[in-house]
Amino acid sequence: MTDLFGHAKDRIRNTALRSRLMTPEEASMYVQDGATVGCSGFTPAGYPKVIPSAMADRALNGGPKNFTLWTGASVAPELDGRLAEAGAISYRFPYQTGKAIRDAINGGEVGFQDMHLSMTPQNLRYGFYGPMDVAIIEVCAITEEGNLVPTTSVGNSPSFVESAERVIVEVNTSQPEGLEGIHDIFIPEEPPYRKPFHVLKVNDRIGTPYITCPMEKIVAIVPSNVPDHLTPMKEPDPVSRAMARNLMDLLSVEVSSGRLPPGLLPIQAGVGNVANAVIGELVDWPTDDLRIYSEVIQDSMLTLLETGKVQQMSGTAFTNSPEGAKKLLRRLEEIRKKAVLRPQEISNHPEIIRRLGLIAINTALEVDIYGHVNSTVAMGSKMINGIGGSGDFARNAFLSVFLSPSTANGGKISRIVPFCSHVDHTEHDVDVVITEYGVADLRGLVPRERSRLMIEKCAHPDYRAPLMEYLRLGEAKGGHEPHDLASALGWHLNYIEKGTMVPDQ
Amino acid sequence: MTDLFGHAKDRIRNTALRSRLMTPEEASMYVQDGATVGCSGFTPAGYPKVIPSAMADRALNGGPKNFTLWTGASVAPELDGRLAEAGAISYRFPYQTGKAIRDAINGGEVGFQDMHLSMTPQNLRYGFYGPMDVAIIEVCAITEEGNLVPTTSVGNSPSFVESAERVIVEVNTSQPEGLEGIHDIFIPEEPPYRKPFHVLKVNDRIGTPYITCPMEKIVAIVPSNVPDHLTPMKEPDPVSRAMARNLMDLLSVEVSSGRLPPGLLPIQAGVGNVANAVIGELVDWPTDDLRIYSEVIQDSMLTLLETGKVQQMSGTAFTNSPEGAKKLLRRLEEIRKKAVLRPQEISNHPEIIRRLGLIAINTALEVDIYGHVNSTVAMGSKMINGIGGSGDFARNAFLSVFLSPSTANGGKISRIVPFCSHVDHTEHDVDVVITEYGVADLRGLVPRERSRLMIEKCAHPDYRAPLMEYLRLGEAKGGHEPHDLASALGWHLNYIEKGTMVPDQ
Repeated sequence: MTDLFGHAKDRIRNTALRSRLMTPEEASMYVQDGATVGCSGFTPAGYPKVIPSAMADRALNGGPKNFTLWTGASVAPELDGRLAEAGAISYRFPYQTGKAIRDAINGGEVGFQDMHLSMTPQNLRYGFYGPMDVAIIEVCAITEEGNLVPTTSVGNSPSFVESAERVIVEVNTSQPEGLEGIHDIFIPEEPPYRKPFHVLKVNDRIGTPYITCPMEKIVAIVPSNVPDHLTPMKEPDPVSRAMARNLMDLLSVEVSSGRLPPGLLPIQAGVGNVANAVIGELVDWPTDDLRIYSEVIQDSMLTLLETGKVQQMSGTAFTNSPEGAKKLLRRLEEIRKKAVLRPQEISNHPEIIRRLGLIAINTALEVDIYGHVNSTVAMGSKMINGIGGSGDFARNAFLSVFLSPSTANGGKISRIVPFCSHVDHTEHDVDVVITEYGVADLRGLVPRERSRLMIEKCAHPDYRAPLMEYLRLGEAKGGHEPHDLASALGWHLNYIEKGTMVPDQ
Repeated sequence: MTDLFGHAKDRIRNTALRSRLMTPEEASMYVQDGATVGCSGFTPAGYPKVIPSAMADRALNGGPKNFTLWTGASVAPELDGRLAEAGAISYRFPYQTGKAIRDAINGGEVGFQDMHLSMTPQNLRYGFYGPMDVAIIEVCAITEEGNLVPTTSVGNSPSFVESAERVIVEVNTSQPEGLEGIHDIFIPEEPPYRKPFHVLKVNDRIGTPYITCPMEKIVAIVPSNVPDHLTPMKEPDPVSRAMARNLMDLLSVEVSSGRLPPGLLPIQAGVGNVANAVIGELVDWPTDDLRIYSEVIQDSMLTLLETGKVQQMSGTAFTNSPEGAKKLLRRLEEIRKKAVLRPQEISNHPEIIRRLGLIAINTALEVDIYGHVNSTVAMGSKMINGIGGSGDFARNAFLSVFLSPSTANGGKISRIVPFCSHVDHTEHDVDVVITEYGVADLRGLVPRERSRLMIEKCAHPDYRAPLMEYLRLGEAKGGHEPHDLASALGWHLNYIEKGTMVPDQ
């Protein structure tokens, strides 16, 4: 513990602030029952690790709970996992993953509103969600002036620090000091005084390398040496590889037709194994001037940087496997020159996304025959993770692509359905749908053309005839976008009741 | 006819171009069978009137048809009405109103893709929809250099002129010459070279007062003196007035709570009688510094300008009643100083909408208990008009409000439903829902809170108990956003089969 305090002290360059070093238990006393708490962290990167644990322990022993917990996006078991298990969370915003918190949300014990990630910090500052009591921010250093240097993510931290009445800092000495300089922190002026964001290239900088924080707001500083909760990436399975190859085919056609330049436009890819696999395929791309403007920077993107394929990168977090984290550390100096970590308000901002003209690659939970996409809720009601940044990117991209395996649960679920049981992205926001079977390029197509292409190119062969039969029923009834409302949700009901979507023979 | 040619000549300041004056019938020869034709016009304002009629006549006499017809948005009977009646349209983009074209779309004879209006010109330039053969543009003048001065709308005309192989011009001498100077024409650079748009105030100008057009592209110029197809505004009915008062209450609370300044933020309002009535209520707003940043500038907005309530306005079209058109003409000099007409790509651009922080006021066809909005398709399949710009504004606004009467069809349809039969705006994009019964402020609320508020504040009293019963069924099944999929679309099915949504007693 003494060592821990000593190491943390070295990271606190403002000597006056060193006196505010204390234990997690002492710091947790600053968080009252019913408090709204904003924590750093975006994916399992850069979130506070030891104070939330102390808060959970107190809650289990009759201490404060009923927290409204804000983060950048999902975090890790040490944060919302432990607090959810302790029954300490009433509301959770704006995104989540993890069994404990998800079960509590679906059970109705924890309230969750699913939000576009780019909008959360501005709506918070606009006062739409009430005041924020405490911000808990992981840093790798505190500057001479008392400003905060984030670690492996930025997320919503700048707006949490600005909005919160009190700030608690976790100085994590397991995070490399060399992260300093990689962040570009910027909080926009509020309307009607906002100015254009001068991000004209992927890695243009418009802010400061630290989060500005008035010294008097910092009530406690806690040392930590717990590393980010890294999980290994899965080896791409054959379905992911087939989807990735289909995507490469699409991009090659766009280049040969002159709609995309040879080095493409900046690429965004969702978080997870599928996106990681897809980006991995770019290692064979013929040019060496690729750019990434995404939400998270994953393993495969670092590999592209290492192999010289990518020259500029921007994101709000590094989401790495243990292997990727080592690569990050090894290459930190080079990465600092080529990559920027921004607040999620900027990494996901429509202004920049539409200006740069992104190729947005996101995953779908289910897609209907007309191209409406469900990203979040299974069988109409059960929240999986949340919409995250997919709406920010899909709506504003140059080209909006959604990927999904054609089936799930061993073929018992078709991900191409007659009618989505929940819609997160409408037909207006979906240019191309890709499964392991093919590419449905929906641009310029009208519903009667879209449905046939979706069935022919994307549906699993076992579901093509039943989908055509649904279409026949709908078209007999007529309309611009024909549906048979009586059987529209029948596939989902079949699954709920009989464990398979395969229509009755 | 000679007079018509003489008057048109006076509007063509480039003398060389005067030799290209011809009749509509002659000009229509430049439009081939199967052509993709881009016409000026946004709402019944600024669209070509005499050439489309000649095209329809030719089609009826065995001439060219199978057109793909593009406009800015809806237009008027003389354009897509006549061409649809003549069976001359194969595809229609990106928005429409009017019985003839709507019936053809719902009958499957005309293909229609429903698009965000801000995206249509860029996607066209990106080559997503193939080449454009002919642009037909109504102007009030042609400049010395051969550039085109639009009339009462800008819409997609700049991009049509840039993309089309040939340009046909209708010089409409019934349109006031004093419109010159009101337009601000700007086509963004394409990614990755696009720059920020320096619109920092509602009426900032960033372009030219005319559409740049290479002289050699202009193959025909046709004189016209047919006025815009103006229709009278309806007097606001009690339901519209009640919704308007509820909106004023909301805005007053936002001001008194400090979330909005006393003069509000720039206002956007959808097109039509309800929006017109709602904006009309602002005549009693306590301050005189209101601003309008909208898609169309309607009668009630001109009244606000006339009474000194509004100081700055921006739109892509004037959509007036005959009365409003007179007001426009009478006040043209003042309006030219305070108002700007822009391309719809700019009037509806996310970059500017989010920067200025708009209050977006749009109408809904139906809203579900969790706040998903259907704006376009009745009973799952039947296209009404299209999404228009509502998605551009709702997604990017400071505050996104949707208005809807609580019922339709004499109470037989509840517009607050368990489950939308089509989704255009997701729960992520809807802050507030207003009916004549009240205001459901959904900001920061989770699904279980949203549903109760929607039922209590917005549903018609006759439908509140059935909606609560649906909720009970759903919540018994559990999940983050509880639904009973077996009865989710039952209300729509009931209406289709029995002519009323009222659930069976």
